[in-house]
Amino acid sequence: MIGDVYNAESDSLLFEKVSEKVKKHGVVIVGLPGIGLVGKIVVDYLIKQLKAKKFAVFYSPAFPPQVIMKKSGKVRMLSYRFYHANVSSKEFIFLVGDIQPFESEWQYGVCKGLLEYLLKFKPKEIITIGGYGTNQFIQKPRVLGAANAQVEIEEYKKLGVIFGEARGSIIGAAGLFVAMGRFYGIPAICLMGETHGAYVDANAAKAVLEVIAKKFKMKIDYSELEKKVQLTERAMREIEEELKKMQQPKEKENLSYFR
Amino acid sequence: MIGDVYNAESDSLLFEKVSEKVKKHGVVIVGLPGIGLVGKIVVDYLIKQLKAKKFAVFYSPAFPPQVIMKKSGKVRMLSYRFYHANVSSKEFIFLVGDIQPFESEWQYGVCKGLLEYLLKFKPKEIITIGGYGTNQFIQKPRVLGAANAQVEIEEYKKLGVIFGEARGSIIGAAGLFVAMGRFYGIPAICLMGETHGAYVDANAAKAVLEVIAKKFKMKIDYSELEKKVQLTERAMREIEEELKKMQQPKEKENLSYFR
Amino acid sequence: MIGDVYNAESDSLLFEKVSEKVKKHGVVIVGLPGIGLVGKIVVDYLIKQLKAKKFAVFYSPAFPPQVIMKKSGKVRMLSYRFYHANVSSKEFIFLVGDIQPFESEWQYGVCKGLLEYLLKFKPKEIITIGGYGTNQFIQKPRVLGAANAQVEIEEYKKLGVIFGEARGSIIGAAGLFVAMGRFYGIPAICLMGETHGAYVDANAAKAVLEVIAKKFKMKIDYSELEKKVQLTERAMREIEEELKKMQQPKEKENLSYFR
Amino acid sequence: MIGDVYNAESDSLLFEKVSEKVKKHGVVIVGLPGIGLVGKIVVDYLIKQLKAKKFAVFYSPAFPPQVIMKKSGKVRMLSYRFYHANVSSKEFIFLVGDIQPFESEWQYGVCKGLLEYLLKFKPKEIITIGGYGTNQFIQKPRVLGAANAQVEIEEYKKLGVIFGEARGSIIGAAGLFVAMGRFYGIPAICLMGETHGAYVDANAAKAVLEVIAKKFKMKIDYSELEKKVQLTERAMREIEEELKKMQQPKEKENLSYFR
Repeated sequence: MIGDVYNAESDSLLFEKVSEKVKKHGVVIVGLPGIGLVGKIVVDYLIKQLKAKKFAVFYSPAFPPQVIMKKSGKVRMLSYRFYHANVSSKEFIFLVGDIQPFESEWQYGVCKGLLEYLLKFKPKEIITIGGYGTNQFIQKPRVLGAANAQVEIEEYKKLGVIFGEARGSIIGAAGLFVAMGRFYGIPAICLMGETHGAYVDANAAKAVLEVIAKKFKMKIDYSELEKKVQLTERAMREIEEELKKMQQPKEKENLSYFR
Repeated sequence: MIGDVYNAESDSLLFEKVSEKVKKHGVVIVGLPGIGLVGKIVVDYLIKQLKAKKFAVFYSPAFPPQVIMKKSGKVRMLSYRFYHANVSSKEFIFLVGDIQPFESEWQYGVCKGLLEYLLKFKPKEIITIGGYGTNQFIQKPRVLGAANAQVEIEEYKKLGVIFGEARGSIIGAAGLFVAMGRFYGIPAICLMGETHGAYVDANAAKAVLEVIAKKFKMKIDYSELEKKVQLTERAMREIEEELKKMQQPKEKENLSYFR
Repeated sequence: MIGDVYNAESDSLLFEKVSEKVKKHGVVIVGLPGIGLVGKIVVDYLIKQLKAKKFAVFYSPAFPPQVIMKKSGKVRMLSYRFYHANVSSKEFIFLVGDIQPFESEWQYGVCKGLLEYLLKFKPKEIITIGGYGTNQFIQKPRVLGAANAQVEIEEYKKLGVIFGEARGSIIGAAGLFVAMGRFYGIPAICLMGETHGAYVDANAAKAVLEVIAKKFKMKIDYSELEKKVQLTERAMREIEEELKKMQQPKEKENLSYFR
Repeated sequence: MIGDVYNAESDSLLFEKVSEKVKKHGVVIVGLPGIGLVGKIVVDYLIKQLKAKKFAVFYSPAFPPQVIMKKSGKVRMLSYRFYHANVSSKEFIFLVGDIQPFESEWQYGVCKGLLEYLLKFKPKEIITIGGYGTNQFIQKPRVLGAANAQVEIEEYKKLGVIFGEARGSIIGAAGLFVAMGRFYGIPAICLMGETHGAYVDANAAKAVLEVIAKKFKMKIDYSELEKKVQLTERAMREIEEELKKMQQPKEKENLSYFR
């Protein structure tokens, strides 16, 4: 069932509502593609472990004009997908996706659009997951944090998250959701697992998963994490290869990249 | 006769209506420039064979700001062109064009604009034509399919089209029309002729033409296909060369590419 | 005196009206930077020879965010400038400018905005001037034409302008004004002086000036054309050098190009 | 406290009001990152010396989608920041920021938005500060000026500022504020300290500071200027390094730059 074709607030967002039975005052956990794919792995894994249900799909001209062919013979557009699950009467909303917009203004616009969509569910906290690139192989990755409110810092310090040590910037949605969340009065934190940065990192993902499990008293079976990582890696490689093909024609001079 | 200067729905689309005698509930066949120029060749050929009549021209700032000089001494803008033909009381709408937009958001915007324009004619099916690049020379090219509805898969399987084998993404309009068609409730399929990918391919075009002819019981004379291919190739080379000239100044430092 | 800060039709155009005493039904002659700077030289020269008066200045975010320092110690923004002159009771409107927009959609948008502005004066003809790059040194440059109406072709053929020989595309405003002029019902022609393409060409400019002088029975003194060319060349070099500086930081990594 | 989430005039600007106790008819002094970081150093220093108070923060999708991690464990978005101070009953408004927009249209759009915001305070003068790159090491840097009104030229000539000698263009906000200020009837001047251009220049900053101190009879202690310069340089390096990381993925083919 299709909802609004083009969101009223932001005419560049297209939502397809699958269901609306989301409870209010939930915790939003965001895992989009990024360093070490830590965020994507963590949230994909939570969705599977908690048997979360998809309730909305989000499309945008901010994504490449590329359509994925499925084994079934059908196609699907690049998208962000919202899931929800209820764990010991706590509501969770998960956001995962295929890709982040390249263009600066789209990053802001998409974040704003999604935050305003989430407002409907009066979220009480937003957690974005990412990797913190160290360029080194790390045996026991720590989890670093950056938040938009002191209460978040206090809360996650107790769980072993380290604040004030990560330097520089958080680039992309993981940072913008936290910083922009403040404008909407939503406490938000970015949890970053230490990772080399050059490869997909199940270990860093596990470190972050453990913080979340502890915080929300979730029981998580980590046995399939390694397998999940391999699937994630393969899927992302495919999207990247297509993107490469698409970006070449600007340098070369043929039009043959369109089908 | 000029219709709306700027479409009400999408202020970036300019339609010039030539005629409006298009019957409703037709089949839309889209062939835009892409891999092996398969789509463009197929639909250009169908237009000629079926003596289809032009009924609308579509301009957009998504196209390069480039005007083609005709032998007659006149100029014409880069465009997408709509044709229609009635074959044994079945209505067909054809869409061909000079070029696809480079920018991601324009691809989405143009597809959306054209789909909404087509809604006026209540199309019962959209078929986009493309090439499926294999990087190999293929004696007997097969036709691969990707659809937005199970009914399409069933229908075209009977005609020998192969589903679920093509992997990766469809980039550009051929994919977006199919995926976005679903939002408007229009069954749609992308038919891709296997092709090397590095050259204009009459053979792949013929394979797709045969599927379409069989499906709609059209009688098609293939004898002029080879000739058509040569003309298409030459025309596309000219546009590409102009584009090259236009893209250079960003690297070089003269303004001389504007006339 | 400043008019509308941001044009109602197109919120990206800023017009500064200097005067409004322009007579209706005039001939518009457009000379923007392009191949061999032929268009700019021709129209700058006509403005000087006919003592045309500036009546409007046009600014746009389509131009680089760059401000020119004048000898007087004042600054001026990059702009397009409208002039008018009345020659033997024929009204002429001239359009000259510093630069053409780089982005494709801006080219279309700026042309549309300017055409709609010009509609106020009910122009009876638009002539755009350009160079036709031949890559060869030409002793006696001819003038090639491309028009949007048969009546224009007939008219200018009589004056020795050659139609149907120029191939390929006209890139930028010189072509778009002619092609888009048709949507507004204005007969339009692009006159192109044959030129090498790699240097500023006074000779090609003279060839086009002679066609215009003949057509409109103007008396033009060509003695200062060579001097004018040198000044034009120097001014354009300065703008290009600044542009180069501005475009470098995307590759390098300092922010120092902003003052 | 948050004010308008998205400015009414320009939907791309987000203002966060901290306070509104700004007196009208003040002098606006703008120092954004640019050549030699002269503008940023001068205005950062004035803010500290005059104990100016922050009264508004400005965010924009024109800035990179990047969030800075602070030592406190909190994050902040890239921003422009407004301060004000009252010195011997003269009101001053200061504008500083992290970065200038890369895209041409954003430069115009942001300048317009900020000028319209400033109109609320009926500013009587705008001074933008920049560096004038000479490519040479200069012992005693002079201050060059470019203004939008004769009265400004007269006024600053008395203070030793040199007009008409600087050639070429002023790129970015320092120039646009002055040129666009004219459309709003605000006298404006760009003061440029001569500087090599390849390094952060405390000396050029001091030369400009002296002009401003003299003009407004401010007492400025220059002893901490050198220290300030070092801090500024380090902070800018960090932002640049992050930007570099962000810009690489377009060439490379991983998505790992997002956290």
